[in-house]
Amino acid sequence: MAIIKQNSPVLFFYNDSKKWLMNISKKESLHTHIGVLKHADAIGKEYGSRLMTNKDKYVYLLEPTMYDYIMKIQHGTQIVYPKDLGYIAARAGIQDGQKILEIGTGSGSMTSFVASIVKPRGHVYTFDVDEKFMKIAEKNIRRAGVSKYVTQTNLDLKTSKEIPVTEMDVALIDLGDPWVVLPKVRQMLKGSGCIFAICPTMNQLEKLTIALIENEFTDIESTEHIIRTIAAREGKTRHSFQGIGHTTYLCFARKAFFGRKAKTTSKTATKPKTATKPKTATKPKTATKPKTATKPKTATKPKTTKKSTKLD
Amino acid sequence: MAIIKQNSPVLFFYNDSKKWLMNISKKESLHTHIGVLKHADAIGKEYGSRLMTNKDKYVYLLEPTMYDYIMKIQHGTQIVYPKDLGYIAARAGIQDGQKILEIGTGSGSMTSFVASIVKPRGHVYTFDVDEKFMKIAEKNIRRAGVSKYVTQTNLDLKTSKEIPVTEMDVALIDLGDPWVVLPKVRQMLKGSGCIFAICPTMNQLEKLTIALIENEFTDIESTEHIIRTIAAREGKTRHSFQGIGHTTYLCFARKAFFGRKAKTTSKTATKPKTATKPKTATKPKTATKPKTATKPKTATKPKTTKKSTKLD
Amino acid sequence: MAIIKQNSPVLFFYNDSKKWLMNISKKESLHTHIGVLKHADAIGKEYGSRLMTNKDKYVYLLEPTMYDYIMKIQHGTQIVYPKDLGYIAARAGIQDGQKILEIGTGSGSMTSFVASIVKPRGHVYTFDVDEKFMKIAEKNIRRAGVSKYVTQTNLDLKTSKEIPVTEMDVALIDLGDPWVVLPKVRQMLKGSGCIFAICPTMNQLEKLTIALIENEFTDIESTEHIIRTIAAREGKTRHSFQGIGHTTYLCFARKAFFGRKAKTTSKTATKPKTATKPKTATKPKTATKPKTATKPKTATKPKTTKKSTKLD
Amino acid sequence: MAIIKQNSPVLFFYNDSKKWLMNISKKESLHTHIGVLKHADAIGKEYGSRLMTNKDKYVYLLEPTMYDYIMKIQHGTQIVYPKDLGYIAARAGIQDGQKILEIGTGSGSMTSFVASIVKPRGHVYTFDVDEKFMKIAEKNIRRAGVSKYVTQTNLDLKTSKEIPVTEMDVALIDLGDPWVVLPKVRQMLKGSGCIFAICPTMNQLEKLTIALIENEFTDIESTEHIIRTIAAREGKTRHSFQGIGHTTYLCFARKAFFGRKAKTTSKTATKPKTATKPKTATKPKTATKPKTATKPKTATKPKTTKKSTKLD
Repeated sequence: MAIIKQNSPVLFFYNDSKKWLMNISKKESLHTHIGVLKHADAIGKEYGSRLMTNKDKYVYLLEPTMYDYIMKIQHGTQIVYPKDLGYIAARAGIQDGQKILEIGTGSGSMTSFVASIVKPRGHVYTFDVDEKFMKIAEKNIRRAGVSKYVTQTNLDLKTSKEIPVTEMDVALIDLGDPWVVLPKVRQMLKGSGCIFAICPTMNQLEKLTIALIENEFTDIESTEHIIRTIAAREGKTRHSFQGIGHTTYLCFARKAFFGRKAKTTSKTATKPKTATKPKTATKPKTATKPKTATKPKTATKPKTTKKSTKLD
Repeated sequence: MAIIKQNSPVLFFYNDSKKWLMNISKKESLHTHIGVLKHADAIGKEYGSRLMTNKDKYVYLLEPTMYDYIMKIQHGTQIVYPKDLGYIAARAGIQDGQKILEIGTGSGSMTSFVASIVKPRGHVYTFDVDEKFMKIAEKNIRRAGVSKYVTQTNLDLKTSKEIPVTEMDVALIDLGDPWVVLPKVRQMLKGSGCIFAICPTMNQLEKLTIALIENEFTDIESTEHIIRTIAAREGKTRHSFQGIGHTTYLCFARKAFFGRKAKTTSKTATKPKTATKPKTATKPKTATKPKTATKPKTATKPKTTKKSTKLD
Repeated sequence: MAIIKQNSPVLFFYNDSKKWLMNISKKESLHTHIGVLKHADAIGKEYGSRLMTNKDKYVYLLEPTMYDYIMKIQHGTQIVYPKDLGYIAARAGIQDGQKILEIGTGSGSMTSFVASIVKPRGHVYTFDVDEKFMKIAEKNIRRAGVSKYVTQTNLDLKTSKEIPVTEMDVALIDLGDPWVVLPKVRQMLKGSGCIFAICPTMNQLEKLTIALIENEFTDIESTEHIIRTIAAREGKTRHSFQGIGHTTYLCFARKAFFGRKAKTTSKTATKPKTATKPKTATKPKTATKPKTATKPKTATKPKTTKKSTKLD
Repeated sequence: MAIIKQNSPVLFFYNDSKKWLMNISKKESLHTHIGVLKHADAIGKEYGSRLMTNKDKYVYLLEPTMYDYIMKIQHGTQIVYPKDLGYIAARAGIQDGQKILEIGTGSGSMTSFVASIVKPRGHVYTFDVDEKFMKIAEKNIRRAGVSKYVTQTNLDLKTSKEIPVTEMDVALIDLGDPWVVLPKVRQMLKGSGCIFAICPTMNQLEKLTIALIENEFTDIESTEHIIRTIAAREGKTRHSFQGIGHTTYLCFARKAFFGRKAKTTSKTATKPKTATKPKTATKPKTATKPKTATKPKTATKPKTTKKSTKLD
């Protein structure tokens, strides 16, 4: 039985739009429109118990799930919603042990979600160019409890010539112009590895699809995901009056080898390791271990020139 | 680099509706409407490569993902689709290390999906009454490579007085009358643990919602999930003409303690462990093996009177 | 060219959520958050012209359409939205010359819409029990300019034994319990005439469908209509972030004759005219003209005992 | 009571996907997979009655509505579906007495629908370039019984310099490149008149929206319309498994005057009548009556150089 203690994380839940995520701190109180609660009153209770505010409203003390962390994430950027995250995981078959490349860390919500699935044997390598966002993301990832499984790197993969990781199982791209990084993503993905791009506009889907074909991807699929809430009540069941609007479109594909190009080209395309070796030579400071990559512990450490933070 | 060998699983992919999942067997050939391929030609190729059939069609040799296993599952029953599975995982925050209760194994598609996420430290305890389906499910779960993380039990939780497992993180119910098992599910769930029921009809949502409130659940949410495919092509991007119909509605909730009932009742309701202890004492015949799954310590041992199969 | 004059109706349009419908009155001004406009400045302008407020915002002077009247209708009750009204008209094939029965006038929005289509040779017979709403509806119908084609009657068709009209082409029902009036609606509809019921809940659809079969209707169809707005902009086209929620479900059917019942029953069921004659005999005050009803001008005047208002 | 006679139109209705629309012809029989029916047996029956086939299946004898004509229309081209037609009518406020311009007659389904609403005092002026389609459309419009209210003209409005009609209330465009005709459509529309374009792709919506702004339209709205069928059955109500896919997007707008352009330009833009007068002068063969247009009978006859057919 899980009992709430000092420092335990708790989701104070009144309803879907009134809920607060915090760690219990003996001397603090939660002040809300529906009344006040003392943290101390939660201590010793089992998760799932409820307290009454001084305004006679019941508030439930829930154990936060990854969903709660994602929905409460501090975002100066657009988050990726659970309905979309869930499809990404299910369609790409993300699971324990996989190595995930993420380009565009944003607020760290997708990073956290994916890390919670690939842990403990997998790892997420996430790249962003904005140091400010990286700090926000770092905090969010830490709060979600998955820092150990995430390596954040401040590197612009659009312009960099580095191939910091290889043999990735899945690549997640959350950039305005995802097509720009496709050739590089190819080099980082394993054969038949999956790619998912977050595309808020139809124009992005269109451009990306063209680029995916050019870059020898197959099983290309663009989708959108609509979640509708149903108010199920005795004798009056119907969809909710409150609508849910557009979040994003998703574009999926898998890396293939068309063998279209001449041998010289295919060498660089299908054998990224040889191509990248010279680079490591010129940068002796980064002690890149060989990328055989069957055991994530030893392999695929990002060899970045810039700041790379193993979050732990 | 992952190279295809004898016995490697391969998804022969032509397009989304023409794809075949099989293990490579030197002497076999794949015979399809789009031509013939020799398995032997796939050996030595990298995943993602393509072969040409004798009818000049390209077929891609993809490494199967959990998605491919689910979509190809042998089903005499309705499968739960990836769009719905994904939301279940994201909304309930399913992740590595969790213990999942599933009532209604069906074809084993949801079982396999969830097992792939909670592994290696978590476990799925799945119950069904139909021995025939259980065999189909066992085969599907094995094929998906997650047998080690699943315990299948032939037990009718609607009528049984046993509480075979406790302190489950998440309960997944795929029954025609999910409300019948709610009191029992409560006893098996941890405090603030999540429940998800597959409800194909609105009537089920309505009845279940009423029962969830009676059984002291909170954060109750009924949803439906619509996936729309977009045909993204240069200058002609639009939604697909092919429509996708209804699969199922989903009902989510979290176990709470309303404290409504008198002390005597709350004892059994809130303290399942003490309540269940006597039972294990009275049933020494079930020789439950210790569960290597890192720490499901004392609780959650399936103490079934009927056949329980640790799939491994 | 249509020029705006004193008393002309004008939709002052800033954007879809900021628009005002009024008649031009020389001495008045329109005061809004986006500034002030003098009605006098609109006089002499062609419809479609724009004026600038004192806050430098352009406001367009549009000629109101039936859509504008419906969307601006004074409603203490739920209105039926254009997306649903449009489907009702298209599915039931409503057109000029038809006689429409409406049970539940509500705010008069559906009444006005339908009248605008069946005019000038058709007519809408609408019934409600709430005198207060009837006054609101009367005002709205008048404003929409279709009073001449509408007869409003204060009569409870659930309890009344009268059959005030017959040989209706289409019956529109906006009641909480539409199944109650089905036997009576049958008597008022012509053979194979269409029925449409506004059903906000799934439970209503279910009950009504059962009752429709019992009451010998065919071609029964329940639908819901989702409108999604697309923000089409150069290089950034996507669905709108703002969602649109549930309005209502719609239930359609056509009157059939199953011939199930014995002759005696079928007499009353299929020959309402003979059945109702005795009634008119006992109420000599209502001067009911013969209901041969081939020419709407002469036929089907409602023979109500209560107040019936020919709106003109 | 409407009785079926020789030559009466009848929809033989078995279910939504098995239905046949034909005129009764004494000596004919209807041969279908569900059995045979003699037309003669329908004669004398009231609409709504049912007959039994020689395979013991009931078939209903329904009076065809405009919906039935549209759904059965002979189409070599894509038809516009009732869900979309209904919204067009409701959003543009189409009603009796209006003059409608249609560019792209196609199979005549939209033409027929709109004519059935604007009749008897309104009129539809429809233009197409393909003589073959025009013949198909003519037949369909005749069958739907609205030829009297439709003038079909074989004219390419993209290239023609004629302004065949003016002061139209609503313009409906069903072309692949609707933006090409916008300047001309402006000249044919009255001030604040409505435009609706059938746009199957997002790219069309985007291009058209840009062109609408350039051509001084306001209240621009792009939408898509999803119809979902609900299987309402006792205790088992749910959405239909059968999905409905994409048909088209719709783009709506109203003609405004931005007054952006210099006086010389605005003259031609806002005063189409003076602009077009010289043209009639040079073409004395077309006896164009003055376009005062308050009474559609006398006004706005298309002054085409090519073949214009008043369908009557």
